Amino acid sequence: MTYQAPVRDILFTLEHVCGLEALEETGAFTDLSPDLVRAIITEAGKFTTQELAPLNRTGDLHGSTLVDGIVTTAPGFKQAYTKFVEGGWQGLSFAEAEGGMGLPGVLGVAFMEMLQAANMAFGLGPMLTMGAIEVLIQAGTEQQKQTWLPKLITGEWSASMNLTEPNAGSDVGALRTSASPQADGSFRLKGQKIFITWGEHDCTENIVHLVLARTDDAPAGTKGLSLFLVPKFLEDAAGNFTVRNDAFAIGLEHKLGIHGSPTCVMEYGGSTGAIGWLVGPEMRGMAMMFIMMNSARLNVGAQGVGIAERAWQQAFSYAQERVQGRIAGQGPQPSAIIHHPDVRRMLVDTKAKIAAARAIVYACGLAADMARVGTTEKQRDMAKRREDLLTPMAKSYGSDIGVEVASIGLQIHGGAGFIEETGAAQHYRDARIAPIYEGTNGIQAMDFAGRKLGLQNGLLFDEMIADIHETATACRAAQNTQIEQIANPLQRAAQVMEETVNWMADPARKPEDVLTGATAFQALSCEVIGAHYLAKAALSAVRLVGTKGVNTGFLQGKIELAHYFAMSVLPSVAGRAKQVTIGAAAIFSLDEANLAP
Amino acid sequence: MTYQAPVRDILFTLEHVCGLEALEETGAFTDLSPDLVRAIITEAGKFTTQELAPLNRTGDLHGSTLVDGIVTTAPGFKQAYTKFVEGGWQGLSFAEAEGGMGLPGVLGVAFMEMLQAANMAFGLGPMLTMGAIEVLIQAGTEQQKQTWLPKLITGEWSASMNLTEPNAGSDVGALRTSASPQADGSFRLKGQKIFITWGEHDCTENIVHLVLARTDDAPAGTKGLSLFLVPKFLEDAAGNFTVRNDAFAIGLEHKLGIHGSPTCVMEYGGSTGAIGWLVGPEMRGMAMMFIMMNSARLNVGAQGVGIAERAWQQAFSYAQERVQGRIAGQGPQPSAIIHHPDVRRMLVDTKAKIAAARAIVYACGLAADMARVGTTEKQRDMAKRREDLLTPMAKSYGSDIGVEVASIGLQIHGGAGFIEETGAAQHYRDARIAPIYEGTNGIQAMDFAGRKLGLQNGLLFDEMIADIHETATACRAAQNTQIEQIANPLQRAAQVMEETVNWMADPARKPEDVLTGATAFQALSCEVIGAHYLAKAALSAVRLVGTKGVNTGFLQGKIELAHYFAMSVLPSVAGRAKQVTIGAAAIFSLDEANLAP
Repeated sequence: MTYQAPVRDILFTLEHVCGLEALEETGAFTDLSPDLVRAIITEAGKFTTQELAPLNRTGDLHGSTLVDGIVTTAPGFKQAYTKFVEGGWQGLSFAEAEGGMGLPGVLGVAFMEMLQAANMAFGLGPMLTMGAIEVLIQAGTEQQKQTWLPKLITGEWSASMNLTEPNAGSDVGALRTSASPQADGSFRLKGQKIFITWGEHDCTENIVHLVLARTDDAPAGTKGLSLFLVPKFLEDAAGNFTVRNDAFAIGLEHKLGIHGSPTCVMEYGGSTGAIGWLVGPEMRGMAMMFIMMNSARLNVGAQGVGIAERAWQQAFSYAQERVQGRIAGQGPQPSAIIHHPDVRRMLVDTKAKIAAARAIVYACGLAADMARVGTTEKQRDMAKRREDLLTPMAKSYGSDIGVEVASIGLQIHGGAGFIEETGAAQHYRDARIAPIYEGTNGIQAMDFAGRKLGLQNGLLFDEMIADIHETATACRAAQNTQIEQIANPLQRAAQVMEETVNWMADPARKPEDVLTGATAFQALSCEVIGAHYLAKAALSAVRLVGTKGVNTGFLQGKIELAHYFAMSVLPSVAGRAKQVTIGAAAIFSLDEANLAP
Repeated sequence: MTYQAPVRDILFTLEHVCGLEALEETGAFTDLSPDLVRAIITEAGKFTTQELAPLNRTGDLHGSTLVDGIVTTAPGFKQAYTKFVEGGWQGLSFAEAEGGMGLPGVLGVAFMEMLQAANMAFGLGPMLTMGAIEVLIQAGTEQQKQTWLPKLITGEWSASMNLTEPNAGSDVGALRTSASPQADGSFRLKGQKIFITWGEHDCTENIVHLVLARTDDAPAGTKGLSLFLVPKFLEDAAGNFTVRNDAFAIGLEHKLGIHGSPTCVMEYGGSTGAIGWLVGPEMRGMAMMFIMMNSARLNVGAQGVGIAERAWQQAFSYAQERVQGRIAGQGPQPSAIIHHPDVRRMLVDTKAKIAAARAIVYACGLAADMARVGTTEKQRDMAKRREDLLTPMAKSYGSDIGVEVASIGLQIHGGAGFIEETGAAQHYRDARIAPIYEGTNGIQAMDFAGRKLGLQNGLLFDEMIADIHETATACRAAQNTQIEQIANPLQRAAQVMEETVNWMADPARKPEDVLTGATAFQALSCEVIGAHYLAKAALSAVRLVGTKGVNTGFLQGKIELAHYFAMSVLPSVAGRAKQVTIGAAAIFSLDEANLAP
């Protein structure tokens, strides 16, 4: 089977877990209503399921080809991209004044989940274009906006994001690409960038490269970096974009997965110098890049959820079809493997984790919207704090779950899962990049345990923990046995989280001790906050029982998942806390010579 | 970098963790001495490192090809196989009387780890040949032994193991391949087998297929199965093996990994019927197959350790070379990433897990030897119980660690890890099959929590738990602060394990509740027993300090690893125990309709 967008789960998460209503109440989105949300998500589900999902394996098999600087994408990609433009999907969450649909960003996140699930290699192009649009909206000059935004927002043009160089991945301060100012106010760029997603392709007429580079005499390190807009085609005298810029793909990477996505080695200024313009102030390249990165981090979280959902659906379907082995006490006939406890356990466990990750990702998207359109400063500030807290969690938990579920999905297939034709292996390969790009999950953990914990004296965490306690209290009063059973584990887990926060935030703590525990701290927080959102889902489900048009079994399922997660995942939190506080000595006392084989 | 066999770690594990001495004391292996062991392991390390490791990527890139029933392996494989035969490695652990080196099986397991690490695709051939040799030694007729064993033991001929059919993977009872008796005592086989590892290739002159099939009128299910020996070439009148049997490869699978290993679809009796002979009694095919499976399960555990070690070495080496980012408080110059706490943590964590898995696998191998050559019945019985307990653990923990470490190894490489040329991705792909074949790890858990727990009223577990308590007591008296700190966590973990054993073994427990918790029970036991072996390693290290020729830093490293594992992994055991006892209702209450998207 191929992918079927989980419209029912997505809508439930938006409306009854994250509280989309709050966004409707701000009045910032004129026509926003439950009916509109339903219509948009349903349509997005149809588009991704019908047009993009069937091309997923095609992209994997054919990849892209590069001949003389020209990249040709896999069969069907160009046609599907045309439909993507026709649907106006690139502009979903951008203002109508800018040519978009004027919908909230969180709906863009939900769309992103479906897009990535349907076809991760395809979806990466629009994901990066989205980040570039954000930068131009927030920091572009009026002329830049007028020139580049309209066709980026329709999707007629795409964008790429150029950070990495052969010697500088996560350490952007070491970048060497240079930008020399010209008399006309433009710059000439020179340098090589690697791992450039959709850096060159045949789906759009033009490509807008956003490139981090160092101006002449700029200081070393990150503070000397500036961001430049370098189009593939420059404007000619007649106002058409026909002049080829000196920005070429000179190589395509051979990757483990996402073969359909052209990952380019880009050469800027190989002959005459690539013409570009500064975006935002000089030396503020990092700030510009963080606008893109924040958009991309959240979307990579959505991508992880998407690939997990797709892998899960395939494993679920296989488990229903594959008849093998008998069930103890149920006669001699063989049974579908979904009835075998260990297979069932894997399916329930992964479904619960996907639901938790989806809730964290969407909650982050909603907070980002509220931070922008909240009606009071207090509301906006609070939402901003929540967005800041959840962004590294969304990225890391979503992408980690993506890999975990893809791996278990393959396992459920048994030997067939290892055969490429089955398709489960592609998810396992594709998913593996998400914990790496847009800042490795280790770097997310440094952001989470370092910068985010330091903001406003830990207020981001205090507010979240208070929310979790509130949810635990509500569970206790739910008048539903399963939900009541969640209350104590959730409360205890929140206490453990609070203890680890206090340990990490202790001013006497050495940085290396904080960094040693950062990944465990992030993982622990994701599990506790995931349980909190699943509990909120269960509480909503109880309230909704009896509502016309809502399936009672579906609601009961939300209660079961929250209960399972609380009983199965939350008990691991205390153990993780010991990893948080283990201290740097535990890993550095083994010196390199004795660590070696 | 490529692979360097970890000879020092392997010898330490054999001698000072598993207690190879006990085997020497039996006198069953005439020349067995520490010097001989050291010589053999060193030589095996050289052979695998120098001859096989460099071909690992070649195998991945070229795979095998099938043209007109003839399979050609990747460039270099045939030549390397010749050297494998010249070294006599196939016969390492078989009796000298049978043409082998007459060394213990546990040395064969250590060799297997190195073989698989160096080249997993190559190593699979010898692994399966080994299992076939075991079957023939234990159950072959005198004539079968004389005809087939000598050239199998030299490695001049190879063997394959034929269970799976399109409709029957783990459920061997559903097999359909038929075997009809002939007047001359032979059988004619007819049927198709899939996923046949090294079923056809160009490295040996003959291939001995062991095939599960159903004789005419045999009952349905597993009890109607018999095992047959079906050679590729039959003996001609002159006593040469020149007569092509009707046993052909008709397809090669396109797999996620181990591309260098030809995974064949085999057709038996497509025209005239494949000629074969019964091995062991009719209807006893399952018992025969279990001889092969037990050998293979332990070796797959060794394989998981091997691939983990290889992935680890590559990540370690990259982390030492890759300079990026500054260390807080250590000046402005960038540092090798091994000094970043999160990277260091990943390296230490995975190294500790590899050491734990290696100890479990070797301890199982040693127990298997002692079960055969122990000097008293009591000693043999006890060793047999230990072998039975550890076999599913060795298979599942070794293979799970293989996937985990390969994934983290890739992560440590950052973006470069996702590029195929780096090589980290190959390990991630190759490792993924090990938790599936030779019985999925879920099936190992059923064996562990079902059959093994039921044997002799739980004595296998009681003895193990008593051993762990003994180790904890020894740690308490170690006069070494770090080791003393292991005592309490280890003791508590043993108590938790005991509680889960009691819960699982409760006669009132429903089978579905046991099966729901089986995987967590197995994982928990592996962690506790892994910690126990690491603690034993640390205790040995303390004893050995000051011994001539033994590096003190190396010994201190063993103490650090045991301490890290106890502080980081053991705290998760209590959480896992909750998963063991969660009960079937937690996963079955969500019915299929509501589990669906």
